[in-house]
Amino acid sequence: MAGRDLKVALLGFGTVGSSVARILGDLKPQGLKLTHIYNRNVARKRAEWVPADVVWTEKIDDVLSSDVDIVVELVGGLDPAGDWVWKALGAGKSAVTANKKLIAFHGIELEKLARAKGGFLLYGAAVAGGIPVIPGLQQGLAGDQITRIEGILNGTCNFILSKMEGGAEFADVLKEAQALGYAEANPTEDVDGYDARAKLVILSRLALRVDLEPEEIPCRSITEVAAIDFEYARELNCTIRQISRAEIRPTGEDLSVGAPNSKNNGDVLASVGPMLVPKDSPLAWSRGTENTVLVSGQYGGDVVFSGHGAGGHPTAVAVVSDLINIAHGSRKVELPSRKTPIGGEFLLRHSIRFVVRDKPGIIAEIALALAEQNINIDAIFQKPGYGALNLPFVVTVDPCVASALRRALDRIAKMDCLLEKPFDLQILE
Amino acid sequence: MAGRDLKVALLGFGTVGSSVARILGDLKPQGLKLTHIYNRNVARKRAEWVPADVVWTEKIDDVLSSDVDIVVELVGGLDPAGDWVWKALGAGKSAVTANKKLIAFHGIELEKLARAKGGFLLYGAAVAGGIPVIPGLQQGLAGDQITRIEGILNGTCNFILSKMEGGAEFADVLKEAQALGYAEANPTEDVDGYDARAKLVILSRLALRVDLEPEEIPCRSITEVAAIDFEYARELNCTIRQISRAEIRPTGEDLSVGAPNSKNNGDVLASVGPMLVPKDSPLAWSRGTENTVLVSGQYGGDVVFSGHGAGGHPTAVAVVSDLINIAHGSRKVELPSRKTPIGGEFLLRHSIRFVVRDKPGIIAEIALALAEQNINIDAIFQKPGYGALNLPFVVTVDPCVASALRRALDRIAKMDCLLEKPFDLQILE
Repeated sequence: MAGRDLKVALLGFGTVGSSVARILGDLKPQGLKLTHIYNRNVARKRAEWVPADVVWTEKIDDVLSSDVDIVVELVGGLDPAGDWVWKALGAGKSAVTANKKLIAFHGIELEKLARAKGGFLLYGAAVAGGIPVIPGLQQGLAGDQITRIEGILNGTCNFILSKMEGGAEFADVLKEAQALGYAEANPTEDVDGYDARAKLVILSRLALRVDLEPEEIPCRSITEVAAIDFEYARELNCTIRQISRAEIRPTGEDLSVGAPNSKNNGDVLASVGPMLVPKDSPLAWSRGTENTVLVSGQYGGDVVFSGHGAGGHPTAVAVVSDLINIAHGSRKVELPSRKTPIGGEFLLRHSIRFVVRDKPGIIAEIALALAEQNINIDAIFQKPGYGALNLPFVVTVDPCVASALRRALDRIAKMDCLLEKPFDLQILE
Repeated sequence: MAGRDLKVALLGFGTVGSSVARILGDLKPQGLKLTHIYNRNVARKRAEWVPADVVWTEKIDDVLSSDVDIVVELVGGLDPAGDWVWKALGAGKSAVTANKKLIAFHGIELEKLARAKGGFLLYGAAVAGGIPVIPGLQQGLAGDQITRIEGILNGTCNFILSKMEGGAEFADVLKEAQALGYAEANPTEDVDGYDARAKLVILSRLALRVDLEPEEIPCRSITEVAAIDFEYARELNCTIRQISRAEIRPTGEDLSVGAPNSKNNGDVLASVGPMLVPKDSPLAWSRGTENTVLVSGQYGGDVVFSGHGAGGHPTAVAVVSDLINIAHGSRKVELPSRKTPIGGEFLLRHSIRFVVRDKPGIIAEIALALAEQNINIDAIFQKPGYGALNLPFVVTVDPCVASALRRALDRIAKMDCLLEKPFDLQILE
């Protein structure tokens, strides 16, 4: 423990910021003292229950040029929050942040700066909020070689997809999520996968020890998932979830089937998007805004973490835990990571939903287009109760890469019996 | 990082010890060097693949009086392993141990000694093997107030009970577990709950910050669980698991119903034993030797950890992670805990299995005995296919404490129609 209390400044007094102040006030962790709160238009934020000697300010320099020891950045986004963290670390202060985007894009330079100036940079709240995945990886699994991460990292998408299980359509559930405050007015960051992607980059760095370029990771939106996809998912004993995954493929694995363009030399694969998830997978069990992370180690096997990944209080728990770690001088284990390009595509079974005006020969034509890409049909599912004029059915195929399937589907999409663009989902093993 | 490599000695070269040596050889973590291996009759243990400069010895003093920096104790039990750890810490060395019994009974004094002499004491492998529950609690949930722990902490019991789900009887599955090396020839420590109890004491210290006396925690054996109990469990949409649980009961909770002897002032409750677990609880999902830990925090809500809790490699991952933490100078967060007696009993629904020679008036007599203890019957289940001469049925009762139910069952046990002692199981909420 430091001899005197460390002075803590909160940048941002929204849901998470006020939860942090609340927990600091309740638990009174030894060695920490809240001294500053910064927010735009701070007057409307001022709260009675915050200790009277805390300085409220709307001038960031009041904080950055002060003698605070730890800056807690809860504003989010790259600009100006990144600049503030940079300045704080540069001045030898420590920084705690929940900002996944900042850590995904600039975490490595910021860690370097912190080390050089003698401060700490902790970001336990940046991934999976109140679930201790980051300390679990850094302190608890340092002794393993993690080869695979699979996670439900975005609570908004999980809320939407687990609600759609009950039969609702995407647009309706999105509205409900917005009304409940689980989704933004512009939901792109969440539903298109960019929020989860930033978190996947951070987990890949800590678990797989590879630095991925966020933009290189293919993201697929969940907006095209329809209620009917859950009906067919049930036939396959699956549900649908937004899955973020990254994997180091062992060198020498045979990936020839349907994978003409895949490399074969210890590559890193990563993707974010909706997938069919078997109901007996822990990833199928998350409900509402919960997060789940599964890491698979060469020695320790699979470890699952699950809990509340978002919300004021759970995120604040991760922030306060980071503050306590700094107060206790608990240095984290920092293992080196290396810059690595995405080196190929996952080889996975797919399920493809077609909607057609029925006529003879449709399956033959689809099968031919798939066969041209070396893709084998596994099974065909057609639920009763639809007429020939608007007939949905689903085809599952043996493991193939998404780009080969895309080429086949581009050709199939030209068939004039098709009433909608075919929609494919990868199937999690 | 220390300037030079830290010298590591392994005490014990069984399954876990050889896995630790193997992982150190494979991963070559920076800052660590294996220098000594101690084992009884060490000659039969010597392995070709261990670096040639490692000293093999069967004299413990060769290690304790050497200049090794970290002693890894993998012998288990209180004596002599406890003495060795004590001596190592007393000499200013660090110690890493997987010994739950030692940490449960003497962890606090050993931590004190380590602090006084400047060494580290880490025991991430003592609970839930390769699942980072201990670092998750220490580093990741330090900022929450944990009020409840529920866990599947013993892989042997979980193997037996999850196998019994398929219809097998206890004795047969125990034999299978022994043949597979999952259970000892004398399985008492596992099946009677003492192994899980030691782990629960450690988790209670780290999560609830209370020091419990292991012997004060009521343990109930799983040996009395029969195949038929799983049939009735299914009727209740439950399964059966060995559950270790501890809870800080909020002050002021009204516990009057059926709980004449329970206190009401922020007491700690704890127990280990077989319970009915609802199938939608994460605790029902563990199969085979898996472990699962659920912690519930005042701010962050429920967090679930799950994975391989035992076995050479997973346990070794936790040991090597601890070694890496020491090499990186990563001090753990040590929050104070206070000595606390067990202060009452859980108030829970129960399910009671009776086997009777049927005659009129049995239910009335049972109901009367229960009513005398203020216990209400909730439902009665009787599966078809049994004759009146040997009739099993199950009664579920509203929440009550185990001691009140025990008094009622003691009276009921005297009914001459009873062919077996009534067998009760608590129902997890």
